[in-house]
Amino acid sequence: MVQTASLPQTGQALREAVRSGRFRQPTSGVAPDYVQTNVAILPKADAFDFLLFCQRNPRPCPLIEVIEAGRTEAVQSAPGSDIRTDVPLYRVYRRGELVDEPADLLSIWEDDFVTFLLGCSFTFEHALLRNGIRLPYFGTDKGVSMFVTNVETNPAGPFHGPMVVSQRWIPSDKVVRAVQATSRYPAVHGAPVHIGDPASIGVPNVLKPDFGDAWEPNSPDDVPVFWACGVTPQAVAMASKPELMITHAPGYMFVTDLKDEDLAVI
Amino acid sequence: MVQTASLPQTGQALREAVRSGRFRQPTSGVAPDYVQTNVAILPKADAFDFLLFCQRNPRPCPLIEVIEAGRTEAVQSAPGSDIRTDVPLYRVYRRGELVDEPADLLSIWEDDFVTFLLGCSFTFEHALLRNGIRLPYFGTDKGVSMFVTNVETNPAGPFHGPMVVSQRWIPSDKVVRAVQATSRYPAVHGAPVHIGDPASIGVPNVLKPDFGDAWEPNSPDDVPVFWACGVTPQAVAMASKPELMITHAPGYMFVTDLKDEDLAVI
Repeated sequence: MVQTASLPQTGQALREAVRSGRFRQPTSGVAPDYVQTNVAILPKADAFDFLLFCQRNPRPCPLIEVIEAGRTEAVQSAPGSDIRTDVPLYRVYRRGELVDEPADLLSIWEDDFVTFLLGCSFTFEHALLRNGIRLPYFGTDKGVSMFVTNVETNPAGPFHGPMVVSQRWIPSDKVVRAVQATSRYPAVHGAPVHIGDPASIGVPNVLKPDFGDAWEPNSPDDVPVFWACGVTPQAVAMASKPELMITHAPGYMFVTDLKDEDLAVI
Repeated sequence: MVQTASLPQTGQALREAVRSGRFRQPTSGVAPDYVQTNVAILPKADAFDFLLFCQRNPRPCPLIEVIEAGRTEAVQSAPGSDIRTDVPLYRVYRRGELVDEPADLLSIWEDDFVTFLLGCSFTFEHALLRNGIRLPYFGTDKGVSMFVTNVETNPAGPFHGPMVVSQRWIPSDKVVRAVQATSRYPAVHGAPVHIGDPASIGVPNVLKPDFGDAWEPNSPDDVPVFWACGVTPQAVAMASKPELMITHAPGYMFVTDLKDEDLAVI
């Protein structure tokens, strides 16, 4: 994990650097220990159904905060923030098609936009690292393996689709620890959704991910463990083709003032 | 806790007894180990704001399920249920005033009603009992002590107001255990919100509750411990005086097919 002294060390410092244009890169490893979030922005007409979708699917869509229509500040998790300027890179989708990748939303913002901040796996990955579990993509330009499963999310209004999961190889003697360490954080995907048999959740080949990069096990005893993934809400929203949806660009997260440990339930 | 063999032993059996008119009494101790819920029903015009209020206040307002407009079945937590008939006693409020206490909602149901099922403290009280903590009101016709605090909930739209808490006397050598046992259940209020000093959360006299009954400590070493309370959403909704709101009558809960243990996060 990159922890260069010249990089912003807090959520607030990072947001200020982003807002002023000084920081325009992925946020992994920046402001360590601060909670980073996925971002989804929808017009109010779709907001109730998407909020309900998140409530019904807390594993893939764990809500950290909702910024209601007419507001731009995450008052609970990032006081003083402005969601129109504080994400390093955005993506604009119209009817499921990517149409723009702007550095801010000032020119396209509408007063009826509702923003959803969703927990990100960085928080529980730090917990895995602290427990001696190696994540080979950390500190590289590659990513975790992600798969579309045959597990359907619970639909709400127009929002529906399969759950996306991330997969990590866990040494067999660390599987119990991995369950315990991530169960503490239900607000960032929580415990695994499956251990051991990729085929049973509709993953035919664990070395051919649908998103991210492929990773071989370190040892024949390593067990494939699957967690609900923050790509699910975007994938579902894209499948549902809402008139307009704005998200962060993958890896360019919104960083809050919350600390990872604030999200632990026990 | 009452566990008479003639009482319904499962959530489904209880709902069928209620629907047929055979069961019209408080649900405490009935269908033991099945998750019971608070009920709040609002027209769709208020539903987004109330859903957002619950998301912002997960301790007092833990959502188990939302039944959207046009539907009457809790498909996730109680398949086959009908929210119009399966609660033993309802309350109808108009602009914050109690106007009726019907046994079913068949004659007043509208297609735009949205139902919120909210976690109830029965689940974590069973966990306290299993850990050797005595709850003197269990098996009596009295209730837990509840207090309006000076802790403001996080507002959403018109919904705002103070958090209501329940208070239990915990032997000093069981306080840590009480925190651990209830932390496992964030979906039913979770860990305490305060330990030890009633005045610091705006409770001047712990022997004069605002709702429920007063309880003396068993020993001078007993510590007052406070949990967020399911009365909060009703109190807040009443303070906010929505045009129409329907709830369960206190103690007459909606009983699901979920088991208490299904709600444990670890």
